[in-house]
Amino acid sequence: MSRAATNLQIDSARLWGSIHETAQFGATAKGGVRRLTLSGEDKQVRDWFRKACEDAGLEVHVDALGSQFGLRKGRDMSKLPVGIGSHLDTQPTGGKYDGILGTLGALEVIRTLNDAGIETEAPICIVNWTNEEGSRFAPAMMASAAYVGDFTTDDILSRKDIEGSTVGQALDSIGYRGDKPVGFQKLGCFVELHIEQGPILEAEGKTIGVVDSGQGVLWYDGKISGFESHAGSTPMPLRRDALATLSEIVLAMEAIAKKHGPNAVGTIGEAVIANPSRNVIPGEIAFTMDCRSADGAIMDALDHDLRAAISEIAARRKVEVKIDLVWRKPPTHFDPKLIAAVENAAKTLGYSSRRITSGAGHDACNLNTVMPAAMVFVPCKDGISHNELEDATQPDCAAGTNVLMHTVLAIAGVAS
Amino acid sequence: MSRAATNLQIDSARLWGSIHETAQFGATAKGGVRRLTLSGEDKQVRDWFRKACEDAGLEVHVDALGSQFGLRKGRDMSKLPVGIGSHLDTQPTGGKYDGILGTLGALEVIRTLNDAGIETEAPICIVNWTNEEGSRFAPAMMASAAYVGDFTTDDILSRKDIEGSTVGQALDSIGYRGDKPVGFQKLGCFVELHIEQGPILEAEGKTIGVVDSGQGVLWYDGKISGFESHAGSTPMPLRRDALATLSEIVLAMEAIAKKHGPNAVGTIGEAVIANPSRNVIPGEIAFTMDCRSADGAIMDALDHDLRAAISEIAARRKVEVKIDLVWRKPPTHFDPKLIAAVENAAKTLGYSSRRITSGAGHDACNLNTVMPAAMVFVPCKDGISHNELEDATQPDCAAGTNVLMHTVLAIAGVAS
Repeated sequence: MSRAATNLQIDSARLWGSIHETAQFGATAKGGVRRLTLSGEDKQVRDWFRKACEDAGLEVHVDALGSQFGLRKGRDMSKLPVGIGSHLDTQPTGGKYDGILGTLGALEVIRTLNDAGIETEAPICIVNWTNEEGSRFAPAMMASAAYVGDFTTDDILSRKDIEGSTVGQALDSIGYRGDKPVGFQKLGCFVELHIEQGPILEAEGKTIGVVDSGQGVLWYDGKISGFESHAGSTPMPLRRDALATLSEIVLAMEAIAKKHGPNAVGTIGEAVIANPSRNVIPGEIAFTMDCRSADGAIMDALDHDLRAAISEIAARRKVEVKIDLVWRKPPTHFDPKLIAAVENAAKTLGYSSRRITSGAGHDACNLNTVMPAAMVFVPCKDGISHNELEDATQPDCAAGTNVLMHTVLAIAGVAS
Repeated sequence: MSRAATNLQIDSARLWGSIHETAQFGATAKGGVRRLTLSGEDKQVRDWFRKACEDAGLEVHVDALGSQFGLRKGRDMSKLPVGIGSHLDTQPTGGKYDGILGTLGALEVIRTLNDAGIETEAPICIVNWTNEEGSRFAPAMMASAAYVGDFTTDDILSRKDIEGSTVGQALDSIGYRGDKPVGFQKLGCFVELHIEQGPILEAEGKTIGVVDSGQGVLWYDGKISGFESHAGSTPMPLRRDALATLSEIVLAMEAIAKKHGPNAVGTIGEAVIANPSRNVIPGEIAFTMDCRSADGAIMDALDHDLRAAISEIAARRKVEVKIDLVWRKPPTHFDPKLIAAVENAAKTLGYSSRRITSGAGHDACNLNTVMPAAMVFVPCKDGISHNELEDATQPDCAAGTNVLMHTVLAIAGVAS
């Protein structure tokens, strides 16, 4: 690699400016962004992004699901492009960084290479994937899922939002139903820059998260059937209290996840008492469980330990507890060579880093099922995301983008 | 007491017939009764009760809150009457026995004394108290509370149901705003027969509960403020989970109530997670606590232990937990002479019995604040009450009514 390429740094102020300029599209009073996929605000940011890509000399195409692809030619066009990017849609009360950093960071990589006059061997393709968030249309990450063949294009086009509009209608309404079939743009690999959406990097004072895996997920629906009775006249030993049962399950799940830690989490996010009343012992509770690990064996152990604990609790308390596994997503293991490239870039640039598991799902996890993929994380304040309070620093965003750029240079190769 | 009086037994079939005849007023498809206070169905049962009292030779009066009083003269009218009775209103999906057994049992006592030609020294007054249940108008037990001076009559008359009708309007609409001022009928004491509404007598195979006390009540409103965060990306040690906090509080309350048992209970009946989502760690929960004991010192200990446990849990989990005591009702200690009279009646009649605390509130608890009072409990199936499944056996209902009658005879005295 040339000396120029080795020392290359992105333009931190320009990146920061792009992030804050586009944050006006759907800006909320509290400083966040409301930019639901395929909305008027999403059209605004897509138009901005297309123009920025064209200004940077990229060849821009849109596929049938609205994902935008901007191609920068390489010296050797027989090589598949290195894909980089993320998404520009947000949660209903989202922040300025989730997805946006990875997409505008990819743009910044192109601009920096352009300014430095660096040509890569392989081409580079920057991508804005449609509907990563999934808050208007289900499922989340639908465009990258269709790209890898998990869904047909027609299936996704027919999905409806809560008002009954289909994805197809929404694409047409903003003029983003592209003329290219899904999958038209072949990629050799994919690297996604993202805020962590968790508190680990900040807590440990690390700048770069080298994401080596994505957690697998177990989702359960549960129901406890105890016995509703009078809070005053039912002695403690004769109770069949659904809430006390749930409480033991919550604490058992916490203990089980900790036992299998640090590579495991377990959460009960929803619990609803039927016919609640201040002076009635809860008789019935519906609840959900969410268990995750990046290790398939640990996922099996979580499932086993949880079922065993629940059986014991239910039998001892003489209540019925039913749990149904409603979703099982296997863990993601990113590509070792790409992981090493990210780690090496961080090291070369002098940033502190640690290997990290992604707790959330990302487009890169879908892509990893058909091509080598990896991710770069940067810290976000207090681990807060999917929230208008979501925040990240300019130096961290710049550092992540530098790591992304040097990873790309290492993979694509610099034309000599 | 005469030999006739000593051996006297009520007419079990007649009592059972009255209970099932009146159960038609508001009968539900599932075999329960829906007879909200001052409703059309309540008017039907009141009319039936008035006619039955008149047929039994009683002098019937209605007070300004609709409570019905049927007086049977005694030999010595300078003595205050022995009051017996309960209520004829039910919960929206109530049963055939709660309140009804005590009121129709009182009527059966009168009918039996009439048939046997027994005159008592003191008069006997049977009472149907208005709105014991409190499900249409708050507070529960409002007529007996006004009788003892806890509320003015005008205050109670102005209370509104959910549709905006006042107690006064409801009384007028069924013709039961009586011409007697509240408190017009002085009573020397009051004895109430009731189903237990709990599982103890059935579990121990006892026929009669000699109620020596009523539980005091502590009601709290609580709020837990933790931190809402992503179920996938927040490691277990960094969580501030409101539901895990609640779970510890639920189990701590259970342990504390057991520690102070058997004379203590503690219940968390309501708990609502704010913005619940399957993949979000609960950040905020509102909940209620209900603690009861018949011992004032234990109530203080429950309050102390609970606050200490909650402080420790909140500090350890780095969450905020606020609890507010919203109601404190002191325990009821029934009159020792009346308790002894009930116990002696059960013994004389050969029924198995045990001292028992009332977990629920009753009109007798209100009356006990101004006069000697006591209660007689009989078993109910599985401890179920406030439910269409509420059930009791004919022999148990008859046994309780026999004990009520012999208690009355012992207190009122039989004219020789």
